[in-house]
Amino acid sequence: MIDTHPDRDQIQLQDVLSALANPLRMTIVRALATGGEQSCGSIVEGVSKSTLTRHWRVLRDSGVIWQQPSGRENLLSLRHDDLEARFPGLLDTILAAADREDGR
Amino acid sequence: MIDTHPDRDQIQLQDVLSALANPLRMTIVRALATGGEQSCGSIVEGVSKSTLTRHWRVLRDSGVIWQQPSGRENLLSLRHDDLEARFPGLLDTILAAADREDGR
Repeated sequence: MIDTHPDRDQIQLQDVLSALANPLRMTIVRALATGGEQSCGSIVEGVSKSTLTRHWRVLRDSGVIWQQPSGRENLLSLRHDDLEARFPGLLDTILAAADREDGR
Repeated sequence: MIDTHPDRDQIQLQDVLSALANPLRMTIVRALATGGEQSCGSIVEGVSKSTLTRHWRVLRDSGVIWQQPSGRENLLSLRHDDLEARFPGLLDTILAAADREDGR
């Protein structure tokens, strides 16, 4: 496990909102919410590796995702349970708002 | 009325999250949520006017607040009804998360 994941109780609201206040990171989070655990390379296309690395770090350091090495890749998953325990309803409400904005 | 307020249907989730992903703006929004309409000068102290002007603009342009001239001041109020209609539960869930983080 990469060691910059905050503990559940250390997750900060400002960090979570900042992490989600970016269209690419929101796309990633929605893909993980829908599809479950995925490898870094399979979620978004057409974005440079260095850009993605930066976004994974923001998502990881804010407590929004787990990023775990797996062979030559990293596996990503949403920290849904931790976020739900820390800030009940927050992630689901934001995801619902994103769906609503898309007309889904 | 200052004319950069977005219509209800034009409020964007990313803009709302960005607006709230800042400690001073969150403090302002929480003060408006608790105390209702207030004048610009009465909400926060010890912050320069130019800094506050920038924060009012972000809050206004994102659709989070109304900012209306009133005599020599501006009156601020939360666009709670518009946000609730656009993204149900979003603002209240974020405010509850902020309270929870503070241990309230």
